Amino acid sequence: MSIMSHFTKKLDSLKFGGLYGEDFFLTWEKSADEIAAVFTVADALRSLRENNISARVFRSGLGISIFRDNSTRTRFSFASACNLLGLAVQDLDEGKSQIAHGETVRETANMVSFMADVIGIRDDMYIGKGNAYMHAVAGAVKEGNRDGVLEQRPVIVNLQCDIDHPTQIMADMDHIIHHFGGVENLRGKKIAMTWAYSPSYGKPLSVPQGVVGLATRFGMEVALAHPEGYEIMEDVEKLGRENAAKYGGKFSTSASMAEAFADADIVYPKSWAPFRAMERRTELYGNNDFDGIKALEKELLAQNGSHKDWECGEDLMKKTKDGKALYLHCLPADISGLSCREGEVAASVFDRYRVPLYKQASYKPYIIAAMIFLSKFREPQKLLSELERKNRARVAL
Amino acid sequence: MSIMSHFTKKLDSLKFGGLYGEDFFLTWEKSADEIAAVFTVADALRSLRENNISARVFRSGLGISIFRDNSTRTRFSFASACNLLGLAVQDLDEGKSQIAHGETVRETANMVSFMADVIGIRDDMYIGKGNAYMHAVAGAVKEGNRDGVLEQRPVIVNLQCDIDHPTQIMADMDHIIHHFGGVENLRGKKIAMTWAYSPSYGKPLSVPQGVVGLATRFGMEVALAHPEGYEIMEDVEKLGRENAAKYGGKFSTSASMAEAFADADIVYPKSWAPFRAMERRTELYGNNDFDGIKALEKELLAQNGSHKDWECGEDLMKKTKDGKALYLHCLPADISGLSCREGEVAASVFDRYRVPLYKQASYKPYIIAAMIFLSKFREPQKLLSELERKNRARVAL
Amino acid sequence: MSIMSHFTKKLDSLKFGGLYGEDFFLTWEKSADEIAAVFTVADALRSLRENNISARVFRSGLGISIFRDNSTRTRFSFASACNLLGLAVQDLDEGKSQIAHGETVRETANMVSFMADVIGIRDDMYIGKGNAYMHAVAGAVKEGNRDGVLEQRPVIVNLQCDIDHPTQIMADMDHIIHHFGGVENLRGKKIAMTWAYSPSYGKPLSVPQGVVGLATRFGMEVALAHPEGYEIMEDVEKLGRENAAKYGGKFSTSASMAEAFADADIVYPKSWAPFRAMERRTELYGNNDFDGIKALEKELLAQNGSHKDWECGEDLMKKTKDGKALYLHCLPADISGLSCREGEVAASVFDRYRVPLYKQASYKPYIIAAMIFLSKFREPQKLLSELERKNRARVAL
Repeated sequence: MSIMSHFTKKLDSLKFGGLYGEDFFLTWEKSADEIAAVFTVADALRSLRENNISARVFRSGLGISIFRDNSTRTRFSFASACNLLGLAVQDLDEGKSQIAHGETVRETANMVSFMADVIGIRDDMYIGKGNAYMHAVAGAVKEGNRDGVLEQRPVIVNLQCDIDHPTQIMADMDHIIHHFGGVENLRGKKIAMTWAYSPSYGKPLSVPQGVVGLATRFGMEVALAHPEGYEIMEDVEKLGRENAAKYGGKFSTSASMAEAFADADIVYPKSWAPFRAMERRTELYGNNDFDGIKALEKELLAQNGSHKDWECGEDLMKKTKDGKALYLHCLPADISGLSCREGEVAASVFDRYRVPLYKQASYKPYIIAAMIFLSKFREPQKLLSELERKNRARVAL
Repeated sequence: MSIMSHFTKKLDSLKFGGLYGEDFFLTWEKSADEIAAVFTVADALRSLRENNISARVFRSGLGISIFRDNSTRTRFSFASACNLLGLAVQDLDEGKSQIAHGETVRETANMVSFMADVIGIRDDMYIGKGNAYMHAVAGAVKEGNRDGVLEQRPVIVNLQCDIDHPTQIMADMDHIIHHFGGVENLRGKKIAMTWAYSPSYGKPLSVPQGVVGLATRFGMEVALAHPEGYEIMEDVEKLGRENAAKYGGKFSTSASMAEAFADADIVYPKSWAPFRAMERRTELYGNNDFDGIKALEKELLAQNGSHKDWECGEDLMKKTKDGKALYLHCLPADISGLSCREGEVAASVFDRYRVPLYKQASYKPYIIAAMIFLSKFREPQKLLSELERKNRARVAL
Repeated sequence: MSIMSHFTKKLDSLKFGGLYGEDFFLTWEKSADEIAAVFTVADALRSLRENNISARVFRSGLGISIFRDNSTRTRFSFASACNLLGLAVQDLDEGKSQIAHGETVRETANMVSFMADVIGIRDDMYIGKGNAYMHAVAGAVKEGNRDGVLEQRPVIVNLQCDIDHPTQIMADMDHIIHHFGGVENLRGKKIAMTWAYSPSYGKPLSVPQGVVGLATRFGMEVALAHPEGYEIMEDVEKLGRENAAKYGGKFSTSASMAEAFADADIVYPKSWAPFRAMERRTELYGNNDFDGIKALEKELLAQNGSHKDWECGEDLMKKTKDGKALYLHCLPADISGLSCREGEVAASVFDRYRVPLYKQASYKPYIIAAMIFLSKFREPQKLLSELERKNRARVAL
């Protein structure tokens, strides 16, 4: 019995042709089958690697990374995914230019892509800009390919935008799926996606929004909780409600961490900035209004400061299902008494969940690799089987 | 009929043995056959890639890049070329040291080259220094190889110096050759290499000089035009005249953009700094005379400002052959009303030529790869045929 | 007769199983046989490369580099070693954070290591910190592997710490071994490891300490000399004395360069900072006492300044064995009249030894590759033979 047959059979049951040749921006732009296909290929690639079978499907080619915000975890996940498949990573460092303009984007996107198979982009700082930038790059290389400028069309992988953080959230979900022994066991499980206090401010909204957008598609009960004033994008809330109706789950919002944690199977307490404030900040940056930005920062820090009780402590954890909910974080967390005086999570809680937290993160390289794989290869089943059959050692023995 | 036979036959007709084991500094140091061989191998490598045939000829080895001036396009072209052939790129970042001294160059060149097969260098800022630096590096690694320090001798590829920009100009020429359907069709074609206004100053001379040095070798009519005071190196002008005589073309200089554009088949309007001013700047830097540099900058900007009429606008374009000359630029261009108020080219002209401009740039990775290929492999025909015969997929299917 | 049999026979005679799966921190934590195995595999890998035989043993995988101090030579050596074996290098740039704390180290080490086979670390600035940091990283990824977070355990290679510089010193020794025609010829040879004047200050102690720790294991006479006040770590001096007794060599300390050079076969004159001063500096940094640091710098420069006579000049060289001792330096050297007014070595001496100095450096990539190889592969003999048998060209012919 081959290792891959489990995965290829699963793929045979799914309709995921829509992923081929396409970019990955937001999870909710993909069908349920397409999402399932990404998990399946991610697990298949992981299985190949665990069995020391090389998954090099490129003999040459570049993976371009564009990080418009600092990153260590996602940077290494992208590098790992590219390397696993045989691509060399080349960073595009744009220097200090914060928001590039249309013409430049079109030109640069083509100039770096003559031998690029993938472009991974992180651009999460400015509301209304990050996702739009990714689309601008995608449009440019699509045109470039159509016009005979680029021999291949690089696929865009969203490594975090202002709306969604698909590689993170899909890694989170793959972790949840494995934790509960299968996607079929998620139905009815309650996940508390809650705000938490942080002494810093202005953290992206892409994680809570991504969770609302994705977890509501598995028949789960998604309880979003945050202090008043920390609303996420309205469109995403609406999507949460629609998904809950469509997929037979629940979506609720509240201003109580305790309510969200009550009987939860999974908790994801994490700081983020109010959507409206981030909109204002983007506007202020657009106007080069640096006094306005400073004033906003002060206001936001004060606002945060009045919600220090939003900490994932032991008492709250006791309210969860059997007191043992799976604790999630995209890392790094603000750990009270460790990385800061008061933060998102009590040190004792964080410490107890360190191993599962690290495992949660371990899915990301495979999720990214799977997104590339499914966009680049029309017949992933055949290719996976072939990789196993060829059985070339990743590391010589 | 094999794909490669077209190219290998062409190579069979050329004498290009002089490229083997040698560096690539200036196009005019290479014979006409050697230049033709680079175009041929560039096209052959492109053809392999278009047919999804891997051109990995290195199983390991480094391509060192030394950028002593900012670069995105050339950086990615070099990275792409190395990757295509199987080399990993490693940047040598020298920090702030502007002009390194002999002893350090010799040592560093050897220290980074123990496993280097190629060193790509961009050093275009200082007259009399860039090309000299490349020769210093080349000499150092040649010695290192001779003395048993280096097991292989890395080939130096000039990624732009103070004199020439061979990878750019050869990419430009390959683009022209394809545009006109073959090198044999270039005879008698007129190319206008003209200065153009830019609000910035101090742009390198390597592009106009490179064009004068190379385009005059194809029986073309090269019309160099610039305002008085924007002279290029005298040696290169002399070379242009000699080439025109030798290869049956023409070389003229004038102070009129309109004259140069008249009936031109190709136009290449681009800003550059006066050679004499760049000589002075180098001297000022050498003396750490920063007041002098500031004064010179001011003077040069004012000088530029009195030539704002040197813009490639629609009226000028109408003067070209059928009003449809091929417009070239090494990018990025200063586009009037887009990237600046007044610049090198009118937005409507630039916009009309975007696709050919991007195609022009697309040749550079292949030109660089061809330079490496011809320096490293004594029998390129055999190797190209072998790559096709082995037919290893660049991307798995 | 195969090329590899010479090396595999040598390996057959050694007990080096302790290297498998282990990190490389300090040479004196390894047995004499293990040290010999590293030299043997380094030479074997070099021999493969010289015979154009690929040594790629990884089809994918990352080599992470963490440089907490500037580096060109070691950076390229690490990159070369990784590339030789098939690993892609990914830099972890921690920005300005000088001394990271436990929690962060554990998390980051795991987050970057999901597909890492090697982590090379340079952290030599702070006494009591560098080696400790490496152990923290090693512990973190060992745990991560044990807990199922990491599918493989990356081996840590010490690219210079506050105590030892094993890749440098082992490259130095491999150079000495080749220079004297075999390790068996080192018995009784005298090596002068001496301090030398430098106009800069605060150079790491890892080189003299590494030499004392390693050279004393070959029955050599190690003469450590430095001005009073430039003592190295007491533990390492003690180790030198113990090694001398155990391996039948000699270890002496003196405050006279001339005494150390007298009849020496090898001289290694090099500046370093007093151990006690470096301890104080670490403390001052820990307390953010920047005035204290400035005062210490001043004091150290003045102290250095009173020992300008500690220069490796021609007169001193004449005192060595036949006036022809092998001159060593880890480079870059402070060359009097060239890189500084007064420095570690006279220009005429340095110049005469340039080629051997460069050769000395050339061993480092192979030493690093050998450390990785022996940690990753249980049966290196089998693997080396297989590489030769497969005979895949590193560069196509």
